[in-house]
Amino acid sequence: MKKILNKPADFVPEMLDGLCKAYPNQLTYAEDIHCIVRADSPVKNKVALATGGGSGHLPVFLGYVGKGMLDGCAVGDVFQSPSAEQMLSVTKRIHGGKGVVYIYGNYGGDVMNFDMAAEMADMEDIKVKTVLVKDDVASAPPAEAGRRRGVAGMVFAFKVAGAKADLGGSLDEVVAVTEKALANTRTMGVALSPCTVPMAGKPTFTIGEDEMEIGMGIHGEPGMKREKLQTADQIAERMTTAILDDLKPSAGDELAVMVNGLGATPPEELYVIYRKVNQILTDKKLRVHRAYVGEFATSMEMAGASLTFMKLDAELKTLVDYPANTPFFKQV
Amino acid sequence: MKKILNKPADFVPEMLDGLCKAYPNQLTYAEDIHCIVRADSPVKNKVALATGGGSGHLPVFLGYVGKGMLDGCAVGDVFQSPSAEQMLSVTKRIHGGKGVVYIYGNYGGDVMNFDMAAEMADMEDIKVKTVLVKDDVASAPPAEAGRRRGVAGMVFAFKVAGAKADLGGSLDEVVAVTEKALANTRTMGVALSPCTVPMAGKPTFTIGEDEMEIGMGIHGEPGMKREKLQTADQIAERMTTAILDDLKPSAGDELAVMVNGLGATPPEELYVIYRKVNQILTDKKLRVHRAYVGEFATSMEMAGASLTFMKLDAELKTLVDYPANTPFFKQV
Repeated sequence: MKKILNKPADFVPEMLDGLCKAYPNQLTYAEDIHCIVRADSPVKNKVALATGGGSGHLPVFLGYVGKGMLDGCAVGDVFQSPSAEQMLSVTKRIHGGKGVVYIYGNYGGDVMNFDMAAEMADMEDIKVKTVLVKDDVASAPPAEAGRRRGVAGMVFAFKVAGAKADLGGSLDEVVAVTEKALANTRTMGVALSPCTVPMAGKPTFTIGEDEMEIGMGIHGEPGMKREKLQTADQIAERMTTAILDDLKPSAGDELAVMVNGLGATPPEELYVIYRKVNQILTDKKLRVHRAYVGEFATSMEMAGASLTFMKLDAELKTLVDYPANTPFFKQV
Repeated sequence: MKKILNKPADFVPEMLDGLCKAYPNQLTYAEDIHCIVRADSPVKNKVALATGGGSGHLPVFLGYVGKGMLDGCAVGDVFQSPSAEQMLSVTKRIHGGKGVVYIYGNYGGDVMNFDMAAEMADMEDIKVKTVLVKDDVASAPPAEAGRRRGVAGMVFAFKVAGAKADLGGSLDEVVAVTEKALANTRTMGVALSPCTVPMAGKPTFTIGEDEMEIGMGIHGEPGMKREKLQTADQIAERMTTAILDDLKPSAGDELAVMVNGLGATPPEELYVIYRKVNQILTDKKLRVHRAYVGEFATSMEMAGASLTFMKLDAELKTLVDYPANTPFFKQV
C-alpha cells in the first residue's frame, strides 16, 4: 500500500477537515464533519438537493456541493454507505422551505439508509423525493435496467437538477427534469488496475498485466468480462457502441459527453479516448453539445476510464449550460 | 505498461486532436497541432503569453491556455522540449500588437529553443520577453537558486501574468509582476512511484514498496534523498518546513497555497496533506488567502504530491483572485 496517509481510520475525517479548511467560504458541515453542506445553507426558497455515498470517489459525491449543483452530502467511510442519521442531519440543515431531492447511486446500503432518512425527515415536515441513478449499462441488461448501478452519469443528474433548482423549479419540476435527464443517460467503463482501501490495506481485486475488465463498477464490482488489454481506439469504440446500442439516439441528436478517469489514468489518455469517441459520433451524425474530459467519479487510484452520454433536448441543454461553482466543478 | 494508447508515436498528436475537439470554442492550433492557441487568437491590444514544454504534465502546460491565463503553448513529445519553430509559430499567431511574454520552466532544452524562437520573433518585429520559472527548492540550495527547476509554481506565474495582461498591463508591467510573483513562490514535492513514458514502455525509475523520494522532479529527476515512506502529516510538515525556510515569510503574511497531485495520488490524500499544511501555517500566524488542491502539474501516472506557496501583497492578491477560464482551470 503506497498511500499518503496517517492512521487509516482517520483518513475520511481528516480528508473532510482538509476540504472544509480549503474552501471555508463554500463548504461547512452540519453537526458532524461527515455531513458536508454549502456554507450558505439553507438557501431560502430553493429546492435543496442532497446526495450521499461512500468516500474514495472524489469529486463524487461531495465535490459537487456548491452553487448551481448540490446543497449537501452525507459522507460514508471509503466505499461504505453513510447512515440515515447523517442524511437526516444534512436534510435538516439544507432545507430552504421548498423540499429536498435525494439524488444518488443505486446501491443497496445507500437506498436503505436514505429511504429511512426520508421517512424521518417527513416526520419533521420536510418533504423529500428521491431520484436514483442507474446509468451503468454494463451492470445489467436493458430488460433489468432497474437494477443497474449508478456511476459517473450521476454528475449529469447533479448538474441538471442543480440548475433547475437554482432557476426556481418546484420540487416536482426538479424531480421530473432529473428523471428525464437520467432516462437519457448511459455510462460504461473499463478498469485496468485495482485500488486499495486504506482500512483493508490490500488491492480490491487482482488483474493480469495485460488484461482489462470491461464494465467494472467503481468499487471493483465485476463487469461484463475480462479480456486482453486493447488499444485506446478499440476501448473507445467498445464503450461508445455499448452505450449507443442501449440509448438508441437518432441522427441529428445532441449529446453531452463525459470521458471520466477512474483515478490513476492520466488526462492525456482520456483525450486520446475522446478523440475516437468524437469521431464515431460525428460519423453517426450525432452532435456533441458539450464535452467533459477529466476525473469526475473515481475509485481512489484505480486505472481506467468510463464514458457517459446524455441525450439532450432544448430544456436539458439550457440546464447543462447553466453556470455552476463547486470546489471540483466550475462552469462559467 | 498498462496504458490506454494506440501507437505510442501517435500519443501526443492524438491527445492534442482530442483536446481541440473537446473544446472547439476555446482552443485551436497554429500551423501544426503541436502549437495550441486560444481559439480567439490573436487578442488585439493585449500582451500575449506563451509557454511550452514536454507533454505528460497535464494540466501543465497547455491546459492553462484560455481567458485570463495563457494565449498559446508549444507542445513537445512526452518529457521532450518543443522546437524553436513551434514556439515561433505560436508567437506569431498570438501576437496582438503589445508583445509576447514567454513563461516556462528552467530546463536546458526549453531555454535553448525558446531563446532561439524569441530571436526569430524579434526579426519579425515581435518583441518577446522571457520569465523563467525556478520554484523547486529541492533542486538546488538557495545560493544556487538560479539553477532550480520549474515545477507547479509556474501555474501561479501563469495566473498572475494572465490577469495582469487581461487588465491591460504593458509588456514591462506583465514581466515585472510575474517576476515578483515568482520571487515569492516556492515548491517542494515527494514521489512515491514512477511513471511510464509511452515510447520507452518502462518506468522512469524504480523505488522500493516502502520508500519515497524527497524532492523528486516532475520527470523523475533525483531529489534530495530517498527514505522510508512517512505519514501524511510528516510529509506535509517536511514540505512546509523546506519551503518556509527558503521563503522566510513573516507572521501575518498571506499566502496562496497549492497542494498538487502528481498523477495517481487520489484527491482525498491531497486534502489530508492540506489539513496539516493549513494547521502549521495557522500556528505560525500565516494566513491562507486562497487554497488550490488537485492536479495542476503532473507526471503521467506518478504517485506523489507537491506543495507550493506564493507570498502575496495587495497587487498579487488582486491578480490571483481575477477570473480565469481555461479547459483545466476555472476561477469565478
